[in-house]
Amino acid sequence: MAEIGKVVSPGKLASNMQKRITRAQEKVMQKLGKADETKDMAFEEVVANFNKQLADGTKLQRDLKAYLVAVNTMHECSKRLHDCLADIYDPEWFGKEEVDSLVEDTDILWQDFHQKLADNAVISMDTYLAQFPDIKARMAKRERKLVDFDSARHHFASIQKAKKKDEAKIAKAEEDLGRAQKVFEEINYELQEELPTLWNSRVGLYVNTFQSVAGLEEKFHRDMSKLNQNLSDIMTKLDEQRQAKKGVKAASIGTSEVATNHNLSESGTDINTSPSESREAPPAPRPPRPTSCQEVKLDNVTIVLEETVVADINITTPSQVRGQMTPFLI
Amino acid sequence: MAEIGKVVSPGKLASNMQKRITRAQEKVMQKLGKADETKDMAFEEVVANFNKQLADGTKLQRDLKAYLVAVNTMHECSKRLHDCLADIYDPEWFGKEEVDSLVEDTDILWQDFHQKLADNAVISMDTYLAQFPDIKARMAKRERKLVDFDSARHHFASIQKAKKKDEAKIAKAEEDLGRAQKVFEEINYELQEELPTLWNSRVGLYVNTFQSVAGLEEKFHRDMSKLNQNLSDIMTKLDEQRQAKKGVKAASIGTSEVATNHNLSESGTDINTSPSESREAPPAPRPPRPTSCQEVKLDNVTIVLEETVVADINITTPSQVRGQMTPFLI
Repeated sequence: MAEIGKVVSPGKLASNMQKRITRAQEKVMQKLGKADETKDMAFEEVVANFNKQLADGTKLQRDLKAYLVAVNTMHECSKRLHDCLADIYDPEWFGKEEVDSLVEDTDILWQDFHQKLADNAVISMDTYLAQFPDIKARMAKRERKLVDFDSARHHFASIQKAKKKDEAKIAKAEEDLGRAQKVFEEINYELQEELPTLWNSRVGLYVNTFQSVAGLEEKFHRDMSKLNQNLSDIMTKLDEQRQAKKGVKAASIGTSEVATNHNLSESGTDINTSPSESREAPPAPRPPRPTSCQEVKLDNVTIVLEETVVADINITTPSQVRGQMTPFLI
Repeated sequence: MAEIGKVVSPGKLASNMQKRITRAQEKVMQKLGKADETKDMAFEEVVANFNKQLADGTKLQRDLKAYLVAVNTMHECSKRLHDCLADIYDPEWFGKEEVDSLVEDTDILWQDFHQKLADNAVISMDTYLAQFPDIKARMAKRERKLVDFDSARHHFASIQKAKKKDEAKIAKAEEDLGRAQKVFEEINYELQEELPTLWNSRVGLYVNTFQSVAGLEEKFHRDMSKLNQNLSDIMTKLDEQRQAKKGVKAASIGTSEVATNHNLSESGTDINTSPSESREAPPAPRPPRPTSCQEVKLDNVTIVLEETVVADINITTPSQVRGQMTPFLI
């Protein structure tokens, strides 16, 4: 069952249809130059302002939303980059805990910035723009009522001009003209009040929007700058730790060749937790190598031999094969 | 004609082919458990580190590049948003020039940040990662030379085990074994020197990368915060200007109804440059309207009539139709 509010009586339907026909006739007459059309130049300027205001507001809303998406994307990428730092950051390096907490703080700062931008700037823009469709509909209604007024005016004039005066018809036409004019003037007056007010309201909206954006940005960037200052400080300390270890390692290389070899032989575990070499450091010069098989010595190696293929052999590796070589029989 | 450098002699080709066959045979024997395989557990740890280092570096490079793309996107969106502000900012509003120069400064700051991030962090990551393919190729070569060594070792052992000793063959096999061992040990030694150094170098790379990123971010955000502080100040001043004009307008409304009507009638031009009304302000109460056609008065209106349709009429609009209505004949 249709809602009561939506029920339109047949009489109302016929009346609406008649209105449309009358308006169409009037517009045709005006287009053909057969009837004059009332124009309000001042109102047209107000309408031009309204259209500019709507276009500007729509563009600002679109740009703000695109900016918000970009903030979100940069937040995600910043988070991935910082998570990567936290992942590669060895627990034994200087400031591991500080790095972890800094990564978290950076994430929270981005989240907060994005959320507040959405809450303040974007939502107030949406509210502002939500006024426009209703006003636009009323401006279209005003146009229709102006056509009705012109139509009634022309009808009254033509009846007055008739050779055979019919006072009853003239009175009826005059009454219709008065009614059409009243309806038009009512909506015209409302819009003449509201449109300039709406037009002026844009200044407040722009002030609020950009003051809100600028305020949030100012705080966000200030805090982000501090977090990055902290990160930079941690990196400086890590570099100092690295340089210090490098100095210790260099000293130990200078005093003991055995120690160097030992370090290298345990490179897989020792160096994992002791960053002490720079990649800029040139490789150490090679020790002399055996020139014939007779010199080959294999230390610390047990070779499990497959009896069906090879007999016991006694091959030894030279000292430069420092990895602890163990046999692996598949 | 093929380049001289690319010419490979038939003898060399055959030798390479023989090497591949011998290696394949040795690998099959090892897989089948028919021959022992030399394993270097310490070196395998170094290799595991290398693989982790390469994976970490590749991920860091990818995350940095994605971040750089996000910075670029946010720069573009920020530029569009600020350009939008400059476009909608009326030249008569407070601080138009400051806004324009601020929009430009913000753009330059983003550009500079993006460019320096690309130049410093991303390029040094690229240089760092460019070392890996060569080392990876040499690690694969070491693997092949180890298979050659195992193969020569097994060949020598089987010849030694033979019932009928052939001293010439034994000497040749021993010589081949010595050569294979020497070749393997040479590359093995180089990698044992270089890989831990490369592994340690990651610390310096991470320090440089994140110190560079953090330093650039720290400066960028600090400067951006200041620019936004300036924008916020301009918005505050614009709001004060708006409120002051609103006060003046309200005062004039209070003292002169005529003045109000005049303002409204010129809304299309006057209000365009004089933001003096708030959208929050409720519409002014309607003045009384004519209740019959007789009361209708049309001021300041000239209607050009189409003689064929309507005769001269004398319709006047009431005072509330304040727009300067001019006839428009199509």
